[in-house]
Amino acid sequence: MKNKLLIVGTMAYDSIETPFGKVDMVLGGAGTYIGLAASNFSIDCSLVSIVGSDFNDQHIKLLKNKGIDLSGLELSNHQKTFFWSGKYENDLNKRTTIDTQLNALENFNPIVPNHLRNPDILMLGNLSPGIQIHVIEQLKKKPSLIVLDTMNYWIENFRSDLEKVVSMVDVISINDEEAYQFTGESSLLRASVCIQKLGPKYVIIKKGEHGALLFHSNKIFSAPALPLEKVVDPTGAGDSFAGGFSGFLTQTGDISLEKVKSAVIYGSVLASFAVQKFGTQNLFNISSTSLLNRVNAFKELTTFEL
Amino acid sequence: MKNKLLIVGTMAYDSIETPFGKVDMVLGGAGTYIGLAASNFSIDCSLVSIVGSDFNDQHIKLLKNKGIDLSGLELSNHQKTFFWSGKYENDLNKRTTIDTQLNALENFNPIVPNHLRNPDILMLGNLSPGIQIHVIEQLKKKPSLIVLDTMNYWIENFRSDLEKVVSMVDVISINDEEAYQFTGESSLLRASVCIQKLGPKYVIIKKGEHGALLFHSNKIFSAPALPLEKVVDPTGAGDSFAGGFSGFLTQTGDISLEKVKSAVIYGSVLASFAVQKFGTQNLFNISSTSLLNRVNAFKELTTFEL
Repeated sequence: MKNKLLIVGTMAYDSIETPFGKVDMVLGGAGTYIGLAASNFSIDCSLVSIVGSDFNDQHIKLLKNKGIDLSGLELSNHQKTFFWSGKYENDLNKRTTIDTQLNALENFNPIVPNHLRNPDILMLGNLSPGIQIHVIEQLKKKPSLIVLDTMNYWIENFRSDLEKVVSMVDVISINDEEAYQFTGESSLLRASVCIQKLGPKYVIIKKGEHGALLFHSNKIFSAPALPLEKVVDPTGAGDSFAGGFSGFLTQTGDISLEKVKSAVIYGSVLASFAVQKFGTQNLFNISSTSLLNRVNAFKELTTFEL
Repeated sequence: MKNKLLIVGTMAYDSIETPFGKVDMVLGGAGTYIGLAASNFSIDCSLVSIVGSDFNDQHIKLLKNKGIDLSGLELSNHQKTFFWSGKYENDLNKRTTIDTQLNALENFNPIVPNHLRNPDILMLGNLSPGIQIHVIEQLKKKPSLIVLDTMNYWIENFRSDLEKVVSMVDVISINDEEAYQFTGESSLLRASVCIQKLGPKYVIIKKGEHGALLFHSNKIFSAPALPLEKVVDPTGAGDSFAGGFSGFLTQTGDISLEKVKSAVIYGSVLASFAVQKFGTQNLFNISSTSLLNRVNAFKELTTFEL
């Protein structure tokens, strides 16, 4: 029997412009990226989310074909699907949001179907901390691991809710600027100590093209990003990281520091695939060979003798 | 007999302000940082530089005590020592130069003493490309390795001289912004390909707190920076890196990719020491045990199982 990963996160249509082109209304959303990235592992993967009346049946089919259980997907008949539109500058770290239409997401109150309430790992994609807490409270027992992703909006506007959900999880995945913002510290090491005090045993700080840092007790692990010839679209890199991370750990079923480190590498691998094409496109066709090759590329990138 | 490292670079007095304090007229200069970092290895290390009439004898003594051969140090009796003053913002990546007084450096025309013209490795600190070429031309035979450091000023104002000296060296050490500026490329991978075409077999791209990338043919190696509680003063981090890099390679005498990778780690180790105190202060008292411990910390930081 396969281990079970429950993902809660948004599904969206995105319009994205980068120096390498422009796409309209492509399949996106944190939950979608996470699910697609996680679907590369031998696990039972389910996604609880919400879409609107405009959501394309073909997209449902594509996700189901990747083995993602969508029995927890809510359909909001009177609203459209969450829509996001953004533009990246030549410096891909600089992103401007052009439009956000919450639509169906506005009243999202996820109900986890009964048969999904006992996951081995729960992956909470970026959502309001209130919703994230509500999901945790529906579970029948504490999973082996709860992983939380969040973003600056919740830090700025929902700090006390955010601190509450942070205290309920084992792993937090956050980017460097958000870690500074959340803690007021001036070094990532100190920020991680501060966050660990709130509850999470593992703090992952994502640094985009500079990779990610994992902090656990007094141990630190640094994962590089793979230098790529071209980053076409950074959208969803962090979500793909979260999917690779939680998918790998669900598959192994072993939550030791060593495996968590490997999971950070798998997360980085999935993120590196995601950014090479627009939207979620590149996550649909990762062969096990190309996955393995890329994992080995990360190994080669970091290995040295003394 | 020990292998020989010849360093050419500036010696200076610096006044530095960072969020952690302020120091006035402390010993600095690229050559000084490089020499001090390299002096941690079992090598014959010499520094060709220039100082003015105000240079403190005590500083000469301190450097000689670290085993640095200063027989190529010129004393300019009618001028003062090169002076630089700068201030760092809370974001330590942002530095403002407050004052630069070239002084003795203005007419620096380094003469390499005869007994130093046969080094195993030549380390060219950041200086005008014309001076760097002039130094190479004084050598009796091509060293096993020539390492070049440079900066944006020379890219902007002396591009053709810079391209000439780049074509004469084996390794270039440059930061990420300078790599983009020098090549006009939009990814570090492509920038490194572009620079390798000019001559250097090894391209090192320094990314400050995000570590460094080494490019060699189609191989890439990523070295992290050690996450520190506090970076007190980033001045000289790149120079300390260059000193650790060239010092280690001079000691091993083996210029294989594996050793060059290790050298990048040793460079990162020395840079991590340098930034923990103001100026060159922390480079004077690195015990072999603390060096070894920190090298192991880098190993631990990057090691993962698959």
